[in-house]
Amino acid sequence: MIRSLIIGAVSFASVACAHAQTDEAAPPFIIPADIAETAQTLKSTALESNLGFRIIEDLTTQIGPRLAGTPQEARAREWGMAKLKELGFENVREEPFELDLWTRGHSVYEEVTLTAPYPQPLYAISLGGGGATPEEGSEAEVVYFASYDALKADTVSDLAGKIVFVGDRMTASRTGEGYGWANRKRRDAWVMAEDRGATALFIRSVGTSNNRFAHTGMMSFPEGRHPKIPALSVSNPDADQIERIAKSGEVMKIKLKTFAGWRGKSMSGNVIGEIVGREKPDEIVVIGGHLDSWDTGTGALDDGAGVGITMAAAKLIANLPENPRRTIRVVLFGSEEVGLVGARAYAAARIEDETLANHVMGSESDFGAGEVWRFGSNVGPDALPAMDAIGRELADLGIIRGDNESGGGPDMIPLAMAGVPMGRLDQNGEDYFEYHHTPNDTLDKIDEDELQQNIAAWSVFTYLAAELDVDFRAGEAEAE
Amino acid sequence: MIRSLIIGAVSFASVACAHAQTDEAAPPFIIPADIAETAQTLKSTALESNLGFRIIEDLTTQIGPRLAGTPQEARAREWGMAKLKELGFENVREEPFELDLWTRGHSVYEEVTLTAPYPQPLYAISLGGGGATPEEGSEAEVVYFASYDALKADTVSDLAGKIVFVGDRMTASRTGEGYGWANRKRRDAWVMAEDRGATALFIRSVGTSNNRFAHTGMMSFPEGRHPKIPALSVSNPDADQIERIAKSGEVMKIKLKTFAGWRGKSMSGNVIGEIVGREKPDEIVVIGGHLDSWDTGTGALDDGAGVGITMAAAKLIANLPENPRRTIRVVLFGSEEVGLVGARAYAAARIEDETLANHVMGSESDFGAGEVWRFGSNVGPDALPAMDAIGRELADLGIIRGDNESGGGPDMIPLAMAGVPMGRLDQNGEDYFEYHHTPNDTLDKIDEDELQQNIAAWSVFTYLAAELDVDFRAGEAEAE
Repeated sequence: MIRSLIIGAVSFASVACAHAQTDEAAPPFIIPADIAETAQTLKSTALESNLGFRIIEDLTTQIGPRLAGTPQEARAREWGMAKLKELGFENVREEPFELDLWTRGHSVYEEVTLTAPYPQPLYAISLGGGGATPEEGSEAEVVYFASYDALKADTVSDLAGKIVFVGDRMTASRTGEGYGWANRKRRDAWVMAEDRGATALFIRSVGTSNNRFAHTGMMSFPEGRHPKIPALSVSNPDADQIERIAKSGEVMKIKLKTFAGWRGKSMSGNVIGEIVGREKPDEIVVIGGHLDSWDTGTGALDDGAGVGITMAAAKLIANLPENPRRTIRVVLFGSEEVGLVGARAYAAARIEDETLANHVMGSESDFGAGEVWRFGSNVGPDALPAMDAIGRELADLGIIRGDNESGGGPDMIPLAMAGVPMGRLDQNGEDYFEYHHTPNDTLDKIDEDELQQNIAAWSVFTYLAAELDVDFRAGEAEAE
Repeated sequence: MIRSLIIGAVSFASVACAHAQTDEAAPPFIIPADIAETAQTLKSTALESNLGFRIIEDLTTQIGPRLAGTPQEARAREWGMAKLKELGFENVREEPFELDLWTRGHSVYEEVTLTAPYPQPLYAISLGGGGATPEEGSEAEVVYFASYDALKADTVSDLAGKIVFVGDRMTASRTGEGYGWANRKRRDAWVMAEDRGATALFIRSVGTSNNRFAHTGMMSFPEGRHPKIPALSVSNPDADQIERIAKSGEVMKIKLKTFAGWRGKSMSGNVIGEIVGREKPDEIVVIGGHLDSWDTGTGALDDGAGVGITMAAAKLIANLPENPRRTIRVVLFGSEEVGLVGARAYAAARIEDETLANHVMGSESDFGAGEVWRFGSNVGPDALPAMDAIGRELADLGIIRGDNESGGGPDMIPLAMAGVPMGRLDQNGEDYFEYHHTPNDTLDKIDEDELQQNIAAWSVFTYLAAELDVDFRAGEAEAE
């Protein structure tokens, strides 16, 4: 997922600034007893159900990696359609869209060797969007920058014909907030390197892991420009090696061979299924995850988990004696990793079919499969007491009430920017970046107990958002 | 290191069966006060010194992986000679020997793809000694065996033209004792597979890690026979995938391309340096580690650690105002991983130069860089009180006294079998097989505090073994 984009969207879409818990003036919202009871029943059922895990197991076993625009992603859409139908969802459909295809073009490996001063292989991997070397590979001297800021501040180094290396180590946190900072070098260091004549960019892996895998992910492309040079991420232990040699002052050279590149247009799509509302079928609570994943792992945490969590939560709600008042729509977004392409296509289609205003609440799960620890929101001030009430239903799962300035997840950004109210179930991401965007993003990294707590929270939140007679947009704050 | 071989050698070389602590009859051995004081000083110095870490850092940075018989191992010998001289060791020399060379022949990667029923890449790596596929690769159906025992018991499956897969998951323990059991499939499952017409062997990675690396290591070769078929180890997450598909009953196929094979004769060698004894220079306390390592990691834990620990311990002793009574010989063994080739060459050379009987004590460090928690021995019964006394000097490092049936480490096996007394500083190996024989065996996995405790223990043990006027062979038990 593209965590760094969330922040911007949040402040843009923020419709109420007061911290939920400090809004002393508003009278408490009381959830009707029968609805509260149903929510509690759902929670208990979810805590006993292994449906979510089974969905993630199916997706990672039967499809595995599913890079946007590839046949593997197309197979994942078929899988998604079949799974939604199998679980009894209604209006199951695919919304196709076009995208620019980038692939590694080789295998999940890149050939990277430190050739001087101390020859040995390095474990590195192309960043999404990077270019290829000549077929026989290329070799160049390394110019070392300890950080993104050091590269940015540099005006004197001769980078022509050189490999630019950028350090900066990410630190772990529950909220994952170090990611955006560490990720700056992944996004646009290539522009500085290429503009100054460098032959390749290498960055220290953005993830927190000391495993000998490098973290991949898409670069940013100003004005739609794509890099001509290869851009690679180097595992943390290998980046340590580069750092040690840089400190020694010895001339360092790297040889690499990559086949990465842009392959023209390809097709992708969003997969949609619904639990149709019994009273207000046109009002939509939209939840989901993204179906595409990076090609090196099997996309269990990013974002098989989001697919499994939201599909299972919706299915558990569908198992109730009657559907909730509003429609719950589960969207399995395509092509998130490569720039929220599916999310933009979804929002554009809703503008096209004039149903954007029907979206009463949105939330995506895209931060792994860990325990939910905080419930945030981004709703109109009149709806805050209702969100606080939903928060109270979640408290015995160990979930605290957050503020009202939350984003709803990366694929919700276009909707949030269009004013759709958002809920947010924040998951513990302390170890998320140990696995994220690496070969290690596999099923065995998911703790089934934590997943059940997570799905229980999603069931309660989604059910109440769909059932309660609340206008979540109500009382929008004036723009400043 | 080849842990599984230790057990056999221990029972063969065992010269005293009573548990050290239960030998109530023997009078306590009192270490002379000045010697005990020197031992304590050494310990304090070692706990403050970063020499051991610096040695391992140098070796892994400047050489990195050093597969037996390759130019990288030759560079490691040059490094070892230079480092021993730099630290002031005497009689620094190399003892070359010949060996059969096996290499992966490609890079540190193998190309392995699950092609049916669910196409996706698998992370796998050739086992040492395995063969190559045809250049274009090969593809075959998988016959799944849950365990080594299941393969062994099977008499009915048609394995001709198939890939044999063998499960069995290793569990972690402080002593690493699960390794030998889990390793049976690595050693000789290939013989059963090949004899029954299989085209390849795949085994579940022997290590305990759920990282997406497979554990490599040498196979066993009955009667010097080498496999014609490729033999690969599959990472635990990928082995899980194979297991899930096997349970589903779907036909499973794997495509692979490997370039592994035997490359004829090559040269290797042991590197030796000494602290010459002030009174009995001909009596030798031999310690060391092995210089070669697997090609996928950088051999920090296996066995850069042993090299750094023993070299640093000896150097700290050399820094004392006077050398100990006996000679301390540090041996950096070559070609351990491929079958204790250096250890055998060392023992053969000592038979040749008739100095085997001069070896009064031996011990190797080859189990990572973790804290030492137990001090074992394998000495004559009359020497037990002295070993108990050495144990008491180690107690405040948190080290308990073990029994008198210890091996001295893999490269000590030929010496132990020839009757050389052994000491053993057992390291905590709880996480050793998380990294062992994988790309993840890198410097960052070493905890400097644990390493210092480890070297402190080695300093004290080595110094006392060289200084105390004790015949460690004395009172050998009669053979049964």
